[in-house]
Amino acid sequence: MNYKKLGKILGKIMILEAILMLAPLAVALIYKESYRNIFAFLVPISALALIGFLLQIPKPKRNNLYQKEGFALTALVWVVMTLFGAIPFVINGDIPNYVDAWFEIMSGFTTTGSSIIVDITAVSHSTLFWRCFSHWIGGMGILVFVLIFIPESNEGSSMHLLRAESPGPQVGKIVSKMKVTTRILYLIYLGMTVLEVIILMLDQPIPGYENDQFFFSLLATFGCAGTGGFGFIPGSMELFHPFSQYVMAIFLILFGCNFSLYYLLLIGKLRQVLKSEELRSYFLIVCAAVAFVFISLVGKTEAFPQTYTTEESFRHALFQVVSLITTAGYTTTDYNVWPMLAKTTLVVVMFMGAMAGSTSGGMKVSRIVIAIKGAYINIRRLINPHYVPKAKFEGKSLEERTINDVFAFLTLYFFLFISAIFLLSFDPVNGETIQIVSDAGTYTAEHGFFSNFSAALSCISNVGPAFEAVGPYASFAGYSTFSKIILILTMMLGRLEILPVFILFSPKTWKRV
Amino acid sequence: MNYKKLGKILGKIMILEAILMLAPLAVALIYKESYRNIFAFLVPISALALIGFLLQIPKPKRNNLYQKEGFALTALVWVVMTLFGAIPFVINGDIPNYVDAWFEIMSGFTTTGSSIIVDITAVSHSTLFWRCFSHWIGGMGILVFVLIFIPESNEGSSMHLLRAESPGPQVGKIVSKMKVTTRILYLIYLGMTVLEVIILMLDQPIPGYENDQFFFSLLATFGCAGTGGFGFIPGSMELFHPFSQYVMAIFLILFGCNFSLYYLLLIGKLRQVLKSEELRSYFLIVCAAVAFVFISLVGKTEAFPQTYTTEESFRHALFQVVSLITTAGYTTTDYNVWPMLAKTTLVVVMFMGAMAGSTSGGMKVSRIVIAIKGAYINIRRLINPHYVPKAKFEGKSLEERTINDVFAFLTLYFFLFISAIFLLSFDPVNGETIQIVSDAGTYTAEHGFFSNFSAALSCISNVGPAFEAVGPYASFAGYSTFSKIILILTMMLGRLEILPVFILFSPKTWKRV
Repeated sequence: MNYKKLGKILGKIMILEAILMLAPLAVALIYKESYRNIFAFLVPISALALIGFLLQIPKPKRNNLYQKEGFALTALVWVVMTLFGAIPFVINGDIPNYVDAWFEIMSGFTTTGSSIIVDITAVSHSTLFWRCFSHWIGGMGILVFVLIFIPESNEGSSMHLLRAESPGPQVGKIVSKMKVTTRILYLIYLGMTVLEVIILMLDQPIPGYENDQFFFSLLATFGCAGTGGFGFIPGSMELFHPFSQYVMAIFLILFGCNFSLYYLLLIGKLRQVLKSEELRSYFLIVCAAVAFVFISLVGKTEAFPQTYTTEESFRHALFQVVSLITTAGYTTTDYNVWPMLAKTTLVVVMFMGAMAGSTSGGMKVSRIVIAIKGAYINIRRLINPHYVPKAKFEGKSLEERTINDVFAFLTLYFFLFISAIFLLSFDPVNGETIQIVSDAGTYTAEHGFFSNFSAALSCISNVGPAFEAVGPYASFAGYSTFSKIILILTMMLGRLEILPVFILFSPKTWKRV
Repeated sequence: MNYKKLGKILGKIMILEAILMLAPLAVALIYKESYRNIFAFLVPISALALIGFLLQIPKPKRNNLYQKEGFALTALVWVVMTLFGAIPFVINGDIPNYVDAWFEIMSGFTTTGSSIIVDITAVSHSTLFWRCFSHWIGGMGILVFVLIFIPESNEGSSMHLLRAESPGPQVGKIVSKMKVTTRILYLIYLGMTVLEVIILMLDQPIPGYENDQFFFSLLATFGCAGTGGFGFIPGSMELFHPFSQYVMAIFLILFGCNFSLYYLLLIGKLRQVLKSEELRSYFLIVCAAVAFVFISLVGKTEAFPQTYTTEESFRHALFQVVSLITTAGYTTTDYNVWPMLAKTTLVVVMFMGAMAGSTSGGMKVSRIVIAIKGAYINIRRLINPHYVPKAKFEGKSLEERTINDVFAFLTLYFFLFISAIFLLSFDPVNGETIQIVSDAGTYTAEHGFFSNFSAALSCISNVGPAFEAVGPYASFAGYSTFSKIILILTMMLGRLEILPVFILFSPKTWKRV
């Protein structure tokens, strides 16, 4: 284990986090917040910068990283980054409990968006900003960022880190000149972010929040870009005007696309983009899911409290499907009380997630497509033992190895998901009821099996809200500390796609060879 | 496709079913039931025998079966067998609706035990017998039975059918002299069945059912042996005395073991039995699960309506865990109202199932062990790319191919499970509440997400009862015809372990080569 090199990279990331924290500090200054709130960011900034610089001093003998080191480092960085990122909330008093604060910022960086904050109106602007900004940072991955913009790091090491931090079964075809292209991907990300903020600014401000229009447009965009989904006013996106809701829905679809496709668009390869199987499957799934939810809402075969116009039914169906499949988790209405077909459709898309190479979580559409093709091959082989599979994916022949990796991943995903549900069942909160106030009226929700099921799903797929007692108008505050730590781990497993986290905690990783 | 040979085997199985139906016919005669009830069995017996004999006439050119033909035949046999097996219920009027009757007998043959009968006391003895007898037949597999006792079938063909019909990732090591050993397995099955009936007869009869003690001991044993679990008096096994409940729990554990182990025991290889990894894992899981449920019941951290003595808590914990992990589904108390930890433990064991090569359903313990070993190998490979896996299972080296097949199977299992939940969400029954009367008192249960989730799980794992509105003291009668057909298919997919069903419905199977 090349500890010195590991420390060096970790240190750089800590320095970067210190720099990134200057942004919420600036927000605290702009909004003339208390000294305590300013102090809340100054403390971790100083600590990060100091430790970060100290870690630069030892000279590593070897300048490259092995694969296991890359994977372990990635997971380690996420632990360190969130442990420091949680400090401001504790100091400024917005989230006094440290585990709660860690939950919140892990939810931020992993772009989950599950929150333990009960009264969002009581929270300072700088806290709101840091939460949403962490989505934007976490969406694209902080490690890759550091490695690409810092010249000395070498291609090989970066590759391992990129593999560990990028969502999806493979990194894609355009990574041959990785640094160049990844820089372009970051610029696309930045460009789309700026564009969304500008378009959201065209809308009327939300009544009662006229002065905050730019601030809120920025926060909403951070959540869309990173597909995070922290709310910052009561009712998530409910108070936003329909225009903004449609704009966000469209941008969510776009941020759910593989960023390589935008690169291909930029270099004029529209045809190749349109031929992308994953893109087609993704659009097909979104359209089908919107249709199912819409039918469920207008069909009224099952009673539910809200009364929507047809446009509202369509808008909410579109927004919720898009928000949950991209695993952002914003809401425009209380889907917790919707008919079963609508709710189950949302659960299914929460498993799926959007495209590989996007900022979304979940299993990813490409994995689902590959698994289905793999299953087909298995069946064909039983029908005809001499069958030679010639399955293709995205124009390339689909190797046995890739299929097996996908099956292995999905099995692990499923096992970990069930394990999380089991561990949540120890919580004393189970069986209790809470009162929920939403656009569906006031109702009580029990902390039942569906709560734990959907909480575990929401965290492993990095969605955010869940159902029942942890629905969109409730919070995760009711869970015990033990459950919160389980969910923190679940979010991390989901964001880093399982293996790096296992490698970090495997004793074999740290054994001297 | 060797249609004539297929027809010949199918015909033989139909004749066998006709013979097996003589048993419930005899019950109808013994209990002096109405002519209609006798007629109810005579009709399908005649039809099965006639068609069965007609199918023997054509002479097949080729006497062997290819793998695809074996798999397709297996699935086809199960469809035909259940379609005819449902007829008695419709004619004698116990289940007037044909789809309901099909659901019931599919639940019987697949050893699921989910029922659509609302009032079990209104059902005739011959119906009760046929339902439970179908568990006993279905547990070991009807096809294998035919092929082993009928001399002309050749070894190769039988092998494909055995593979298609036997639960678990591999058929086991002792099938080299397949016919001999499988006959022994059937004799062991028969022997254990007789033993359980005798031991149950030692108990005091159930008050109010004194005359039926032998009959009920027989039915209870059929359900244990096949791990089916149809109830035949109100409250499943609640009215049985603790002695009988303990006896059944022990026999359930035994019927959940791989039958090859009994063969090994018979030939004196106790050491090899004790070394079985799957057996150890199975016992470990059972012990752990019983402990969790017991702690949950005596810990009383969460309120629940029943008040148990410590002995009762232990007995119910043992019985429910064993009954659900072996996927029998008998109940001694209403676990639907238990604390979350107890309920979630039961859900987890419902996924697992017991050992491969037993009569149980679910994923099977061996697959879970292999998947965990496979995941470990994947992680070791990432840590050290030169790592050469030397994993073993049951003393043999674990091949890449086996691991990949297990991952593929589990992924498919999971996808089909989610698909079933989704399809159940269309049912108009969703959102309705029903009243349940049990040893926990009278309460209302909503037909919510957990109902569909657990119904789908119960059917794919061939368990029987589920939770909420389809809990142990409720029935599946509330579901629509569409949902029932989905669940019929789900039970079949679960029992035949997915692939044969796909092969039956694949157009490629039936194409002329």
